[in-house]
This record gives sequence, structure tokens and C-alpha cells, in this order.
Amino acid sequence: MSAPRLSRRSPAIALQTPEGLLSAIHAKGSYLCVGLDPDPAKIPAAFGAGVEGMEAFCLAMVQATQHVAVAYKPNLAFFEQYGAAGWAALERVVEQIPSDVLVIADAKRGDIGNTATRYARAMFEGLGADAVTVVPYMGRDSIEPFTAFEGRWTILLALTSNPGAEDFEFHGDRPLYREVLRKSQTFQGAQRLMFVVGATRPAMLKQVREEAPHAFLLVPGVGAQGGTVEDVAQFGMNDHCGLLVNSSRGILYAAGPDATQEESQAAAANVAEDLAAQMRATLEAKGLV
Amino acid sequence: MSAPRLSRRSPAIALQTPEGLLSAIHAKGSYLCVGLDPDPAKIPAAFGAGVEGMEAFCLAMVQATQHVAVAYKPNLAFFEQYGAAGWAALERVVEQIPSDVLVIADAKRGDIGNTATRYARAMFEGLGADAVTVVPYMGRDSIEPFTAFEGRWTILLALTSNPGAEDFEFHGDRPLYREVLRKSQTFQGAQRLMFVVGATRPAMLKQVREEAPHAFLLVPGVGAQGGTVEDVAQFGMNDHCGLLVNSSRGILYAAGPDATQEESQAAAANVAEDLAAQMRATLEAKGLV
Repeated sequence: MSAPRLSRRSPAIALQTPEGLLSAIHAKGSYLCVGLDPDPAKIPAAFGAGVEGMEAFCLAMVQATQHVAVAYKPNLAFFEQYGAAGWAALERVVEQIPSDVLVIADAKRGDIGNTATRYARAMFEGLGADAVTVVPYMGRDSIEPFTAFEGRWTILLALTSNPGAEDFEFHGDRPLYREVLRKSQTFQGAQRLMFVVGATRPAMLKQVREEAPHAFLLVPGVGAQGGTVEDVAQFGMNDHCGLLVNSSRGILYAAGPDATQEESQAAAANVAEDLAAQMRATLEAKGLV
Repeated sequence: MSAPRLSRRSPAIALQTPEGLLSAIHAKGSYLCVGLDPDPAKIPAAFGAGVEGMEAFCLAMVQATQHVAVAYKPNLAFFEQYGAAGWAALERVVEQIPSDVLVIADAKRGDIGNTATRYARAMFEGLGADAVTVVPYMGRDSIEPFTAFEGRWTILLALTSNPGAEDFEFHGDRPLYREVLRKSQTFQGAQRLMFVVGATRPAMLKQVREEAPHAFLLVPGVGAQGGTVEDVAQFGMNDHCGLLVNSSRGILYAAGPDATQEESQAAAANVAEDLAAQMRATLEAKGLV
């Protein structure tokens, strides 16, 4: 091959604007993002071992949940541990995700200038993702090469759900995460930004909304990590929803390691539908469905 | 394949400690790190097109400079734009780098807990790198999964050389980059940390040395980006050298796009030798060679 890779997946064109996202959320009564974290130690044996098992498992999970999922979020670490073979599996998984659902490459990339442009191209064009998570540490010229891609979303880490978030994200009298939210909205292409905000700190969502009242927030930490859909909606929802709430382990491994493929899919569908029902209730309360 | 990938490259065991690094620096009279940033738009046509050209070019550059290079630093963005094929090329390039030279995967990864462990495994075991660059934004539990790998180096971004560094790295009365330097040295495995500090701000190196007098610093920004070896040594060198200074474009593209393979290698060797000679002078001044 001589040119950089081009994914065969068509981008999720209808979901490239806040209005488009709200339409999809309205149609499904759900703002669920399913995190594809294929952990070899947890994938039911019925799917097979290694990278082939991982690929089969991801495809089965997509099939089982796409009626309620607005987005899928493959985390690249799980694929990269298999090297080039893992990347090839990731490419095939993404190409199987329908173009009416958002694909978020959870890559947490961040570099500068020309190099950042190459990461953006790798994720948006090579992999075929509609969105990518980006670390803001290096500032404007590490972010604008991503937001330069029209029709794609750049999702900045702002306030994460892990204990270590205390170390640096709260640094300064005005906490760093607030500065990231505030300043990044002045960058070129800021209308294509979303922000990662952890659900383990629901009260913080209120402060996030002071800085970013209109942006969509990608909220991990619901389910296995302890946050609830109700809390997230109470503090984080705005009048065009403005939320994508992620669950990974709680959905993927619902049936346990000894389940058949069918049992795994059924259990995943159940958990996803239950989360979606909770989301529908919060959307109804807000008059959004 | 069923298990995660294992590189066939043996790690650079002799370079896993500060003393080992100083020995290598002493032996070569150089603390040069050659950045492998294979830009398709700049690689001389004589090496061929696309991912094959990129691989051939990287191998030729390693061959031409290994007599003066203490480390190579492939930047993953350039490979990822070719997807799985690019990763496969990267794997092969790394496997060709001798085990008496440090391989730094310039990946700028950063995630939490179990996920961070998978990135660390991907870089250290899967790719066969001796070191990886990591973004500190998410704090302790995004860093310790990397430093948990004995005999490998984790290189934290502290103060980068790009203009956007002003946006967040200086945030707070006590600038964030200083807090990163200070606090990360209290983390588990901190003896396996190095720090990225840009050479475009040599005076800042003095302040970095206040926070991290003993750590090795990886300094990009010499050459094409404008920093000088002399300035970096003056403000950043300590009594076990404590420096790896990177040059990428200045070495790789010294011969221009129309050069033959031989001309490209000769020009790269010349520039690398010239930088090494400047480094030797600073080492002599400090009594380290």
C-alpha cells in the first residue's frame, strides 16, 4: 500500500451536529454509549481465544446492543496489546459498526502540529471513527489539528473518573479542568468539541455546566464504576440532552465467563436496555422524548 | 495468534539504569536521540513510496546513525496513519534496532488502571520498546501502571516545546509542569521516570532542575525547532549527564527529497556526527568523558 489507510466505513453523517445527535437520542430514547473494552481475561471462552475471540466478541456485542446504543467506544489499549494483528481486528470491528451510530476511538491521543494531524487522520480517515478522545495537556496546537476535521468530534479529557484525577486536574486556584473547559472553547473548531467528565463526581457536573453549558459531555463511570444515570441526568443534562453516557464492563461481561455466545448477547442486551430505559425516563422528565 | 504480542527484540538491558545510560553516553561521547518521524511528504523518493518506503527509510537512518545515537524515538503517529500495515512496519523497524541502544516509543499514551497496563504491555512487551512517553494529565493511577514495569523507562511530558504549552502547562500560581515534576517523583517506581522538557525554553531547564535534579530529561526541539546543544547542556546537564537530546527532521531530511539512499544516509550521518561532536564538547567541559 502506498497511501495512508482509508477505512471502508462511511462516517455517521447524520450525527455530526448537536442537532443530529439529539435526533438519534430522540429516536432511540437513549443516550447510551457502549464501551468496547475487550479484556481477554473476561471474554467468555465461547467466543474463542486471543485476537480472533476479541474480534468475534466485539462484533457480537455491537449486534446485541445497536438498537439502544447511540455510540460505540472502542478503547485502543485492548487492541494495541496484540500489535498489528490487534489493529487489523480493530479496523474490521469499526467497519462493521453501522453508520447511524457514532464510533468514538478512545485513543486519548495528543501531540503537536503536524504529528497531531497524522493522529487525527489515523483515527478519522484510517480507522473510520467519527470521534476521538484527546488529552489537552499540550494546549491549543495539540487540539486544533483534530478539530480541523469537519464533521468529526474531538472529545477532550476534562475531569476524569479515576482517583488520580485529584493529582493534576484540580491543580490551581481555578482548577485545571475548568481552565481546560473554558479555554478550549476559544480554539478553532470548538463547535466540534465534546468533553469527558466522570460520573463518579455528579456534583461536579454542575460546575462543568457553568463552563460548558452547551457542549455534549461523554460521561464514563456509570455502572461498574458506581455512578447512576439519574445523577448524571440531574446535574449534566441540558435542553438538547448534551449527554452520552458510557457503560463498558457492566454490559460486556454481564453473563459471566462461562456463558454461551447467545447468553452473552442476551445478557448484554438486557443490561443495555435497562440503562436505556433509565435514560428514557430522564429524557421524558425533560420533555425531550 | 492467541496471546498478546511479544516482540522478538531483546530489551536494552545495559541501559535500564542511570548508571548504564551514563556508560553508554560516555562510550559514544554523545547523548543523541534520533527521532524517527517518517513523513511521507519528505522521505526521499529513492526509498520508495508508502509504508514500504517508510520502513526502508527508517532502517537506513538507524544504520547511518547508530554509531553516535544513544536512543531512537519512533513517533507512533507516522505509523498509525497507515493503520495495521503501519503498525506491522513499526514492529519490524523496532526489531531491527540493536539492543545496545534505547528505543523510546513516542506514543504519548495515558489511560487508567487496567487500561494503562495494557498500553504499557503493548509498548514494552508487544513493540519491544525500552521506554515510552506518557501524558500525566490523569494523575497517579495513569502513570504507575507504566512505572510498574521494571527495567523500562516511563517518560512523562512535563514542559513541551510547542507554543500551546502556555495554555495549560503553566496553569496555576505554581505552574502545572512544576507540579507534575514534583508530585510524580513521589509515585511508585519513580526511579524509572524521565521527563520531557522542551529545548526552546533553555532557561526553564534551570527551574526543571530545581524540581528534578537527578532525573534524566528527554529534550526535543534542538535543530529544526531552534534550541542549541550548548544551551541545553548549560542549564540541564547534571553530574551524571542526565540528558537525552532529540533531533528528528534535522537529521532525517538533511539530504533533501531528491537524494539517493546513499546520499541520504551520508547526510544524516554528518548531521548526527556534528551534533554528537557538540555533545562531546559539553561532556568534556563537565569532565564526563
